[in-house]
Order: sequence, then structure tokens, then C-alpha cells
Amino acid sequence: MATAESSEASPVTYADVAAAADRLADVTHRTPVMTSRTVNERVNAEVSFKCENFQKTGAFKLRGGYNAIAQLPPDAKERGVITYSSGNHAQAIALAGRLHGVDATIVMPENAPQVKLDATRGYGAEIVPYDPDTTTRETLGQTLAEERGLTLIPPYDHPDVIAGQGTVGDELFEQTGPLDALLVCCGGGGLLSGCAIAARHHAPDCTVIGVEPAAGDDATRSFHSGELKTVENPDTVADGARTPYLGDITFPLVLEHVDDMVTVSDDALVRAMHLLWERMKIVVEPTGALGAAALLSRAVQGQGRRIGVVVSGGNVDLGRAATLFDSQDFAS
Amino acid sequence: MATAESSEASPVTYADVAAAADRLADVTHRTPVMTSRTVNERVNAEVSFKCENFQKTGAFKLRGGYNAIAQLPPDAKERGVITYSSGNHAQAIALAGRLHGVDATIVMPENAPQVKLDATRGYGAEIVPYDPDTTTRETLGQTLAEERGLTLIPPYDHPDVIAGQGTVGDELFEQTGPLDALLVCCGGGGLLSGCAIAARHHAPDCTVIGVEPAAGDDATRSFHSGELKTVENPDTVADGARTPYLGDITFPLVLEHVDDMVTVSDDALVRAMHLLWERMKIVVEPTGALGAAALLSRAVQGQGRRIGVVVSGGNVDLGRAATLFDSQDFAS
Repeated sequence: MATAESSEASPVTYADVAAAADRLADVTHRTPVMTSRTVNERVNAEVSFKCENFQKTGAFKLRGGYNAIAQLPPDAKERGVITYSSGNHAQAIALAGRLHGVDATIVMPENAPQVKLDATRGYGAEIVPYDPDTTTRETLGQTLAEERGLTLIPPYDHPDVIAGQGTVGDELFEQTGPLDALLVCCGGGGLLSGCAIAARHHAPDCTVIGVEPAAGDDATRSFHSGELKTVENPDTVADGARTPYLGDITFPLVLEHVDDMVTVSDDALVRAMHLLWERMKIVVEPTGALGAAALLSRAVQGQGRRIGVVVSGGNVDLGRAATLFDSQDFAS
Repeated sequence: MATAESSEASPVTYADVAAAADRLADVTHRTPVMTSRTVNERVNAEVSFKCENFQKTGAFKLRGGYNAIAQLPPDAKERGVITYSSGNHAQAIALAGRLHGVDATIVMPENAPQVKLDATRGYGAEIVPYDPDTTTRETLGQTLAEERGLTLIPPYDHPDVIAGQGTVGDELFEQTGPLDALLVCCGGGGLLSGCAIAARHHAPDCTVIGVEPAAGDDATRSFHSGELKTVENPDTVADGARTPYLGDITFPLVLEHVDDMVTVSDDALVRAMHLLWERMKIVVEPTGALGAAALLSRAVQGQGRRIGVVVSGGNVDLGRAATLFDSQDFAS
């Protein structure tokens, strides 16, 4: 476990998570916790999967997005919000904006899959496409925010976003009771740090472990070294965990509240994803299978423990998933 | 609606379904009921999906199999049970046998998928392979039953099997309250007639509709004509509904308790299956998507009603599903 002094005024506390849970109570699904005898036998543990693939928009991101917009002052709500994302955060902000009656602008690469553009537009958001070869989404997002007076809701490095994502862990502990360990996938660390804060409250002795794809192990190396590491454009199928580095807010929170970080290979990830689909009958995106992959690949030992695993989302093109599965031999 | 005199001594009554529910209470999963805003908007109804794809063995069949073995006299349990099936009933009897401590023998075609042979063997059943070109499963099953003194548990045409399958409907009504309509897929009619009996008890005015693949419309034509029709080896992706005819017990029950029968094309079926996977994030086998397909293809109109749909199972080879999805254009 990495050690760090508890900061005097942490940017996110359990009280923030609890307040977010109140705000989300009538908005987000209280997603089910699922179990699998097959998984339990294979990993020698009692595993509780928190299924955020069943969340509205197909991923946990709505929690943080909604919680962040909820706390904007009236004049900021009047002007609208903006974010940049080609993934689950885009749809989350689009829907959160609609639910709040707040205009949402989403900066998305012009080559993003049509299905994602359509889904985001379907929630009523304005999409501003950009050419990733000539500009960065951060630059364009910041420029538009200033020009139009929009509030930027970043995908993870924001206290209200983190508190919202922490409600995933909060609900899980309410649903399962105490857990010995909690496995959470890690991209920018918003979900991981939020859930770790919830775990500290519900089960102080629970071992909280972040899981990254091996090719994008920036957070794991940052955690173990105490220095922020970066991996640009990691070559991994876990598109939700391609974030190049932890944030100014999430990095200290991860250091303070997380007990360990591990990585899994893409092969192990695809195998775990296949098992969840085939045996548990749930559609999980690659990033959503990181926690399960850590157990199934023995990066984390079961040891007969009660283990919570956050399944972060289920947004994957079915054809792409088939291609991933085709790349491996699942005969046995 | 077809009419038929209520028989003086029906082979299956609601009391049988309720008794089965008691026997299964600590054995089978009380599977969740799921909803989808997308589906509701598309079909103009409030749809409750009863997700038996999350049942043990991945399909509803365990209910009937367990209920049937439970009621065997001790000496029959001692000698063991036998059935023939290359599908979900095989694994159901294998697991039900293990749970009861009763030896189970399963007659399966020697060319059955290895994964199904392994799964069935994994539950501890003895598999007797046969060459479908030289013998029929019924003949071999009957011969073995007589030679070895085994009790044959047929896949649908048995009162205790039907009563067990009826617990799917029983649970659904307990979970949702009254429904205006109930859609159930139909192969041999065990699930359909059992659920119809449950519906009559919980909601006498509920319209119960059986759904078949268009290529295997034997039950639909039998229902509408009042005469038993047969379709041998129908060419449909809904492998669980390839049963050639209703049974001696299920046909009269369907006539008595079911209000209508409709069919859906394989194209509509694969589209519905894709929607359930992509939007609801659940893995459903082709047969399990029949009810949803009836709504989405407008074979059954939503009309703002509360509609229950039984999702019968989720056992489909993921590669095969990908091939089915590939065969259609889901761009819009």
C-alpha cells in the first residue's frame, strides 16, 4: 500500500459521495449486483459484480456528469455545459444536460463511430466535430467554453464528477454488506478514487485495488512510484482506460485511498470478457471486464474472500466484440 | 381466441404451478425483470422482460426438470432418469439430477457441439451419444429407459414439467403485478401452457400470446385450426423452437388457456436479438428473443399496454451470434 498524509481539506470526502447519492436517487438506476458460481469456483472467491453496464447510457458515467451539472449556479446552467469525449462521458453529459434542462455541447472527433455520434445527438446535445490530426479536443473544448461562456465538465478530474462515480461503490456496499476487497478499473481514476472513498466509509479494512490494461499502465506506475507517469495512446482494447494519466485531483486521491494497482494483458481481458458474456449472459465492454480479468488471470488472488468487482459499462460494438473473441481460442 | 371446453380434470392446474414454485423456491434463481426505455418507446408499451437467460444452466428448463424429478417415488429416484435433448433440457436434467442425487442419462446426438456435451457432462450426467442418421433419440431413449429401468423425463409433454415451467409466469406476475398481455415463445408448448395457467390465476383478463418462428409455425396452425399440425426440422435460427409439434398434453392446454399465436420471421428475430444485446446488454439466444421480436415486428401491437415478455434463455455460441448479426445491416 502506498502511504500519503490525509490532506486537511480533501477535495472529495464520503459526505460528498453521500450527497451525490441523494441527488442521483431518482435519476440513475440502482444497478443490480450479479454473481456467478462458475466465476466463484474458478477464482476461489465470493465475487459480487456491480453491473453498471445496465446503467442508463450503458455506463457509470451518468452519475458523475449529473452530479456535476446539478451543482452549477443558475447562470451557468443557463449558459450551458461542454465536454470532450468520444466515449461514455459524451453520452453521459448529453443525457445529464437534458435531464437538467441544460444545453450540452460535446466535442467529438469527426471520425468517431456514427453510432456514438447518433446516440449523443439523440440525447439532444450539440456535437462539435474536430479533426484529431490538426487540433486537440482539450484546446477546442477550452476555446469554445471561453467563447460561448460554457462550463467545462471534464471526464474525471473534477470533485463533483468523482463524488458521483463514488456512488457506484456506495451502492455496492449497501447491496452486499462488507467486502474484503474491491476491484475497480482505472482510466483517469475518477471511478476508482470515488469508489475507494466509499469503501473506506463502509468497510475500512477492505482492500481497494485499481486495475489497468498492461499497455496503459500509467496509473499503476504512478501509484507505485509516487510520481505521475504518462502513457499516450496505449495500444489496448480497453478504450475506456486509454486515458494517458491520472488527474491533478484523482492522483492524490488514488495515492491516499487505494491499496494496490495491478495490470492485465489484453489477452486476459478478452478472455474475461468472453466468460462474462458466455456464462453470466451480460454484455460487457472491454474496460468493464478489467476487474474480472484481474481475478481470472490471478493478478489478484481470490483467497476465499468476498470481492466486489465494478463492471463499468457495456458499450461495445457487437461486431467489434466478435472480432476480439475470434482472435482467441475459447475451445476449453 | 380459440375456444375449448375446460376439461373436468385438467392435467395441470394453478395448484400444480404453485406447488412447483414451493419446490423450486430454494433451488432456482428468482430471475430479474428488466425494462428498456428504448424498447418501450419503439413498441408503445410498458414491457417487462422476465430474464430466464440468467437462470441456472442459462435457461428456464431447470424449473420443469427439477419439479419432475422431485415427485418421483424413491425407487424411481434410486434407478435414475433419462432424457433426450441436444439443447437446454439436457443441461437442466443433468443439473436437476445432481441436485436431487439422482443419476441422469442424456441421449445426445454425437455431433452435438462439444461445449454442450462438456457442460452436460460437467453436471455429472452420463451422455449416450447416437448417430442421428441411423436412429432417433426417442427410440434410443425409450429402449434405454426400459433396459435400465430409468424414468424418462420428456422435454415438455409431462404435467410436472409443464407445472415447473409455469413458475416463470408465476414469478413474473408476482414481480410486476397485473399485466395486460403476456408473450411466451413456443416450441413444444410446455413453457407457454404453464405460463398461461399462471396468467389465468394472476390476471384473468391478461391476453396470453404464444410466439413461434415463421418457418416452424406448427403450433400456430394447430391453434388456429384446432387440429395438430407438424413441421419437421424447420429452417429457423430459433433452435429451441424447432420442436415439430405440440404434445398430447400441451396441445389441449394451449387451446384452453392461450388467447392467440403469432409468428415472426428469422430476420425480425435476429434484429430483436441484436437490440436486446446492444441496448439492454443481455445475452439472449434466438428462441429467447421471440417475444420481443413479436412486439418489435408489430406482429403484436403495443397499444400502450403493460406487456410481459418471457426471455427463455441465453445459451448461444457467441461466434454463431456474431455470424447471425453479420447477416443483417444494423446501421440505423
